[in-house]
Amino acid sequence: MGATGDGRVDRMASTDRSGTTARRAEELGRIFPDPLPVAADDESLDVWGFRDSGFAINARGRVEAVGNRYAISGHELPSLLPWMEEALALPIDPAERQVSHYPPAVPPSRADAALRGALEARLGAAHVDDDDLLRLRRGHGHTQEEMYAIKQEGLPRVPDLVVAPGSTEDVAAVVDIARTHGACLIPYGGGTNVTDALRCPEDEARPIVSVDMRRMNAVEWIDPDNQMACIQAGAVGRHIAACLAAHGFILGHEPDSVEFSTMGGWIATHASGMKKNRYGNIEELLLDVEAVTAHGVVARSAVGPRESVGSEPKRWLLGSEGTLGIVTRAVVKIFPKPPSQRYGSVLFHDFESGVAFLEELTRRGDLAASVRLVDNLQFRFGQALKPASRGWRVAKSRVERFVVTRLKGFDPEQMTACTLVFEGAEDAVRDQERRTYALAKRYRGMAAGSENGKRGYELTFGIAYIRDFAMNHHILGESFETSVPWNRAVALCENVKQRIWQEHEKRQLPGQPFVTCRVTQLYDTGVCIYFYFAFHTLGVARPSEVFSEIEHAARDEILRSGGSLSHHHGVGKLRAKFLPEIMSPAALEWKRATKRAVDPDNLFGAANQGT
Amino acid sequence: MGATGDGRVDRMASTDRSGTTARRAEELGRIFPDPLPVAADDESLDVWGFRDSGFAINARGRVEAVGNRYAISGHELPSLLPWMEEALALPIDPAERQVSHYPPAVPPSRADAALRGALEARLGAAHVDDDDLLRLRRGHGHTQEEMYAIKQEGLPRVPDLVVAPGSTEDVAAVVDIARTHGACLIPYGGGTNVTDALRCPEDEARPIVSVDMRRMNAVEWIDPDNQMACIQAGAVGRHIAACLAAHGFILGHEPDSVEFSTMGGWIATHASGMKKNRYGNIEELLLDVEAVTAHGVVARSAVGPRESVGSEPKRWLLGSEGTLGIVTRAVVKIFPKPPSQRYGSVLFHDFESGVAFLEELTRRGDLAASVRLVDNLQFRFGQALKPASRGWRVAKSRVERFVVTRLKGFDPEQMTACTLVFEGAEDAVRDQERRTYALAKRYRGMAAGSENGKRGYELTFGIAYIRDFAMNHHILGESFETSVPWNRAVALCENVKQRIWQEHEKRQLPGQPFVTCRVTQLYDTGVCIYFYFAFHTLGVARPSEVFSEIEHAARDEILRSGGSLSHHHGVGKLRAKFLPEIMSPAALEWKRATKRAVDPDNLFGAANQGT
Repeated sequence: MGATGDGRVDRMASTDRSGTTARRAEELGRIFPDPLPVAADDESLDVWGFRDSGFAINARGRVEAVGNRYAISGHELPSLLPWMEEALALPIDPAERQVSHYPPAVPPSRADAALRGALEARLGAAHVDDDDLLRLRRGHGHTQEEMYAIKQEGLPRVPDLVVAPGSTEDVAAVVDIARTHGACLIPYGGGTNVTDALRCPEDEARPIVSVDMRRMNAVEWIDPDNQMACIQAGAVGRHIAACLAAHGFILGHEPDSVEFSTMGGWIATHASGMKKNRYGNIEELLLDVEAVTAHGVVARSAVGPRESVGSEPKRWLLGSEGTLGIVTRAVVKIFPKPPSQRYGSVLFHDFESGVAFLEELTRRGDLAASVRLVDNLQFRFGQALKPASRGWRVAKSRVERFVVTRLKGFDPEQMTACTLVFEGAEDAVRDQERRTYALAKRYRGMAAGSENGKRGYELTFGIAYIRDFAMNHHILGESFETSVPWNRAVALCENVKQRIWQEHEKRQLPGQPFVTCRVTQLYDTGVCIYFYFAFHTLGVARPSEVFSEIEHAARDEILRSGGSLSHHHGVGKLRAKFLPEIMSPAALEWKRATKRAVDPDNLFGAANQGT
Repeated sequence: MGATGDGRVDRMASTDRSGTTARRAEELGRIFPDPLPVAADDESLDVWGFRDSGFAINARGRVEAVGNRYAISGHELPSLLPWMEEALALPIDPAERQVSHYPPAVPPSRADAALRGALEARLGAAHVDDDDLLRLRRGHGHTQEEMYAIKQEGLPRVPDLVVAPGSTEDVAAVVDIARTHGACLIPYGGGTNVTDALRCPEDEARPIVSVDMRRMNAVEWIDPDNQMACIQAGAVGRHIAACLAAHGFILGHEPDSVEFSTMGGWIATHASGMKKNRYGNIEELLLDVEAVTAHGVVARSAVGPRESVGSEPKRWLLGSEGTLGIVTRAVVKIFPKPPSQRYGSVLFHDFESGVAFLEELTRRGDLAASVRLVDNLQFRFGQALKPASRGWRVAKSRVERFVVTRLKGFDPEQMTACTLVFEGAEDAVRDQERRTYALAKRYRGMAAGSENGKRGYELTFGIAYIRDFAMNHHILGESFETSVPWNRAVALCENVKQRIWQEHEKRQLPGQPFVTCRVTQLYDTGVCIYFYFAFHTLGVARPSEVFSEIEHAARDEILRSGGSLSHHHGVGKLRAKFLPEIMSPAALEWKRATKRAVDPDNLFGAANQGT
């Protein structure tokens, strides 16, 4: 997969675009796209997402979705605040704000002049930075604790320098410099993790260098014949999508964070995409990966469609979360843009019948690209997020509600909704739609239109901003997820909700907790369940810590109920303490021994996964 | 996944069938099948397969398929010998036999009394064996070189003892004993590998203990609700299939060796099954794996449908080929027996149009469970393997040939055949059949009936016996495989064939080589190509070595042509020398460092994969 320094592994050199020598056989038919824009300037440092988007309370005391990027953007959401008050069983006074003290004091850089000089000599001074806000941002992801901390007390330890390598060779040089100068390295992609993966160990005595991959963001080549592409680790999802789209392709990988997260991050966290039913999760999309390690550049020459070549880099690096090396590029599958894309939705009378429908749909092997089921609370939350209706829409909305609740007998306090995204050839999509709705009917499901389905799918992106908005109003919130066998799925959801209510009550916290879930992924043997949990913290001492305690209890309940430690978020430092509950002592020792063997100086000292 | 010795990892204990305590939540609805038969008594030691099956020349000087297990069994194959003479461009005198000297002299066991005593004390004397023929069989797989060697000069080194543990705890005890007594261990499953994986290093000074997994062959439980099963590593494919069938399920994993190979072997070699289009390869079927390692039992507690929990045992052990530990059990997906199974076949005018058809079928995402394409030589070989027609079948066969070659204009020297296996719901199967044949027509393909398809699929199992038959007549043969991107597939096939002809000619070997290929697996980005290669060695000095040289050259040509080192056979010792061509020095050093870390005493000293 490119240069590895010794000339032996060069069957598939990919970066030479000079054209002065004849193309190698592998390169025939390949497309070499123009460079992508470098990400991040338009992204917020202190809250999720783009600077121009978010939620705010307007002059009329109503919540408004700011900006124009999302379907919800620019709309006033008159039902939201009243609904939140109802859901949390507390009045919310818009004037009562939890003031953000961002930026907090940032610990001074501990990098010495020698380290900095060596890095600047290699990368150029422009690519070595000790700016406080930049270092702060490179030192955290988006866990509740981290986002609370940067707005309140600050972080006790952040990277001492931020470097931006431009090539695999640059990364290799940075690794050598770190070894020589006794520094440790934490790779940075999109900074969207929710596992404390970037949080700097307080007791790390060495200078910490954040290796910011944003400059390594090229789609190096697209191979349309074989439908694969070579993409650098720092390329951001939205840029990859735009680049591939210009050539008629899609990646098919759409994690909720796809706007901001990176190729390298997806590999390191073993990511999952919303359309995995059709395109696969990252482990199915990934054909090959290159990484810079303590031993040098781990790479393969050619990449086969599927191989049996013993232990190999791809399987070592998937889920490695920055502990074993820095992913620099990957070869992944791509897909022709589907000729047809249609959204859909189905209402069910309750969660159980929705899950039963999903199970039979899975057994039939007939899953739309994306199939998700929200529980009743989340369904109602979605309704509360609807913009104000105007004109005929008011009447339409009233009629719809009448039909659903009165004529069809759906109980507003029990009903759930399934959203669907069908992709493929026009006729295949229509056939699948027909079959899906026919099956739904057998579970008393009522087709609820493509508009609601589209809205549900797109809300995933817009809703990500609400956590920071809520935090301004003393509401702390977080998502977490698991995977669980089919026959334990419904019970797990119940158990986790019950446990959170118990923990909330036990602590005599204000109002009531908001806890809701959806089934987001379907597998032959079970499902992924995605939870949202929030509560009002006005008057609560150490609110962020209390939140963590309850989230910890929820994770414990998940494990007791047969759920996994994580479906796609990963372990990081947040869940490392649970590893002894899911892996035998020998497995943990294997992890540690492997880590020591491949990174004897602990250069990749992020200490994720408890290693 | 069961006991791991410290009581912490016990969420999913699976072996306690006492029923004296209430079932854990995980166990509700599970089936605990009766024990399986222990394999091997009916298998040959000196040739492939069952003792009662094979090929022989009968009194009339014709080849006959002996036995009654396969469709071809019990039939005389009058065209085969004449066709072989034509294909190899040499007369074959049935009387001119290469005499098998099996059994050869077997090196005496080097096991000392202390080692033996310790093993017997733990396992019982009945499960510790130093029988010469048993030790010989445990010391090889089915490469041409090995099979030639056991019939001619013998093997210089074989295991010194063969032990048969009955449980994970037994395996752990064997590992401890090996460490204490300075022995090394080579796990043995079905002995079907073709990578020299079991070949004992000649320079291994320690006693070598073959850990024969045949007693650990239970299907421990079947979870019908979640469609998964826990199966011990020594369970053989045919027994697993029979057990699951009794409960209405299939595994869906059908490697060519499925009659004899084991669950543990499939994991260790990263196996692929013929019906992977519908059920997936081993990496997609495998949910969890338990193994005994130098650090103890590597295991997980519960197993999720899909997880992100960092580095994990499943990914370490896939493809580990016995070098990192001994796989003891696995949790895998299972599938309800498909209501409908239909075979099919299509004739194409040439290999290129067949491949083009396969590519479009793949792009449409509409692959039958198994789709394979044989080249012209293999098609003709298949015809030569037809039993003598009798009665109306003679006329039918003549008419068919007339229609195909005269009316439809298929050139007997160019035409190729695609075999299909459709599985699923009756209507889905019929729809897919219709679509598949409609598409084939656009590539000038002619539907050639389900009987031919069934024959082609089933021939896979019967034909495996022909290599030993051919060897009796001075013909050495071997299969090897690769995977390659779509747009290089046809050229790779041509290049490899041409190279073999060149190598054959260069050495002035008798007659002409037999080299043929088929496309056996289809992927989004390319295909698996499976080659057969044979030549007549009468009068050739060192025939087995010459064969190896040419096979080595063929592998070199595969790599030059953009193919992978292996699609599913693996690396073993046979292809370890090629690893520096496909992995960077750092990747190889990572392999070595990892091996040293997790097996510091090299207890799993098979020295596969060059580690």
